[in-house]
Amino acid sequence: MQGAVLYGPRDVRFEERAAPRIIAPTDAVIKISATCVCGSDLWPYRGINPTTEPTPMGHEYCGIVEEVGRAVTSIKPGQFVIGSFFASDNTCPICRAGYQTSCVHRELVGGAQAGRLRVPLSDGTLVATPEIPPDDLIPSLLTLSDVMGTGWFAADAANVKPGATVVVVGDGAVGLLAVLSAKQMGATRIIAMSRHPSRQKLAREFGATDIVTERGDAGVARIKELTDGLGAESVLECVGTQESMMQAIRSTRPGGYVSYVGVPHGVALDGQELFFAHVHLHGGPAPVRRYLPELMDLVWKRKINPGKVFDLTLPLDQVAEGYRAMDERRAIKALLRP
Amino acid sequence: MQGAVLYGPRDVRFEERAAPRIIAPTDAVIKISATCVCGSDLWPYRGINPTTEPTPMGHEYCGIVEEVGRAVTSIKPGQFVIGSFFASDNTCPICRAGYQTSCVHRELVGGAQAGRLRVPLSDGTLVATPEIPPDDLIPSLLTLSDVMGTGWFAADAANVKPGATVVVVGDGAVGLLAVLSAKQMGATRIIAMSRHPSRQKLAREFGATDIVTERGDAGVARIKELTDGLGAESVLECVGTQESMMQAIRSTRPGGYVSYVGVPHGVALDGQELFFAHVHLHGGPAPVRRYLPELMDLVWKRKINPGKVFDLTLPLDQVAEGYRAMDERRAIKALLRP
Repeated sequence: MQGAVLYGPRDVRFEERAAPRIIAPTDAVIKISATCVCGSDLWPYRGINPTTEPTPMGHEYCGIVEEVGRAVTSIKPGQFVIGSFFASDNTCPICRAGYQTSCVHRELVGGAQAGRLRVPLSDGTLVATPEIPPDDLIPSLLTLSDVMGTGWFAADAANVKPGATVVVVGDGAVGLLAVLSAKQMGATRIIAMSRHPSRQKLAREFGATDIVTERGDAGVARIKELTDGLGAESVLECVGTQESMMQAIRSTRPGGYVSYVGVPHGVALDGQELFFAHVHLHGGPAPVRRYLPELMDLVWKRKINPGKVFDLTLPLDQVAEGYRAMDERRAIKALLRP
Repeated sequence: MQGAVLYGPRDVRFEERAAPRIIAPTDAVIKISATCVCGSDLWPYRGINPTTEPTPMGHEYCGIVEEVGRAVTSIKPGQFVIGSFFASDNTCPICRAGYQTSCVHRELVGGAQAGRLRVPLSDGTLVATPEIPPDDLIPSLLTLSDVMGTGWFAADAANVKPGATVVVVGDGAVGLLAVLSAKQMGATRIIAMSRHPSRQKLAREFGATDIVTERGDAGVARIKELTDGLGAESVLECVGTQESMMQAIRSTRPGGYVSYVGVPHGVALDGQELFFAHVHLHGGPAPVRRYLPELMDLVWKRKINPGKVFDLTLPLDQVAEGYRAMDERRAIKALLRP
């Protein structure tokens, strides 16, 4: 079997790897129908997170179950399934509270940019579609494995309510799907912070009512202007840098909600500033498993089309070009088909 | 009129000051029935916050209205009133959302450790009791001006629910009243972190079911032991130091809630640790005005007795001894009667 392996900064290779097999009795092996490159894959790709040994890449996936371990009861060979980037038992107290990405038995899923993938804790992790999906639904279904669920968590964690004014910081795929999510949750005003025309266009398609191109203090000032000097009720931070985090916190009104869903890199929050900002802050690795059934239903009924974030589709063996295109911001998100 | 004035570290003087008078038409002047020393007064008293000029002290107060400005409509001379340490109009969008301490017109109330006090925005800030209270209720009513409302906010912001397991970090007056608040909100297990026998005793009286004396990493380990390795659902940080904040965050289960209600001093939060902690974080200056009517009712009906935190009562002219006793932790909280 061939798959993507990262060797170091900007050195991703498509090469022969051992085919995955059942190791634990709760495992499943799936044949990948589609996978993609995640914004978070760019941290090690760019060398910001060091790569100490060759690392199989990819954690977003959907496909057909080929084999299951003897302890698996709900997932069956032949089903089309989607799972999260963290495997979870979905039964522990943390899972039951809806935080499956912090499951007491969680395991990171890796190596999905390949023909086949082993998924641990498959009963808890995977959700099957009602039947084998038509091909045109596959991009949107794939987004439920991470990026769409992460955008949805951004909106949920920022307490987006019908009628609310919402700001989205970040115009990557997560930010764009956070716009879509805020729209679904009934926000009436959605301000997308973006300076890229193609991304602004997609943000508007997904429901953004206003675009702010300024960043940092100027961005905050613009948000205040647009919100009677108060700031927004819900601000969704979808980047993970110090600048974007402070931009989000300072754009929020006292008593409002800030969510953050990108792994923070080099972020430190000053306690006293946060205190007087008077905001609610919540984030972390998005528990996409919590949202999978609901979002699968919305995609299945064609009520949302999050697959539009894929503006580049490549055969899997051209995975390196997918990384390059995203690194250079030529593509929002690259879909890979084995 | 005489009142307390801070000149520098550990130099608080009771001396002649100009009597307060109506300045704005929305002001009221009240004759203080009781005031007290706040834990936050100790920051400048200890020189941790510098004192650049002689500063009238005190922001917790209750008393009889003597005079009101011509624009005041709901507050009348002769009423017994309680107000927050921040004056607020109680009509702006931030106030209406329950965040009166971030009111767009907020003004800090200062100089309450005196015989009389000017309260700005008095219609929005002050709440009158149903009638003149009996003397034995005055300590508990006084706590509603800050310390009880702050403990209540700690519990509310940490989403304390019936049946929950709650940890309170800090055994000052706010921490002890956070225990009382968690009990009122129906928590079944309340773990107070305290190493002072007299404070442990009051914590138990207020509803604590467990006492943990360890601090820092050892304290976190003990909380984990007591919560099946998971951490608590709600953790109330009532100190404001780096150690107490991290102790609170690390004692919380993923998906749980951390509140913080003491002004942070020297606190910086690492973005990545916070992200993977997966907690909700909320705090700030407690909007005690939001809770005043409800808490006044509980005190009036003698359902709660927060005044028990005053373990030292002094005539106002001995205010300096009140500061000394709290600084040296000989007293939990000092009540002052003019």
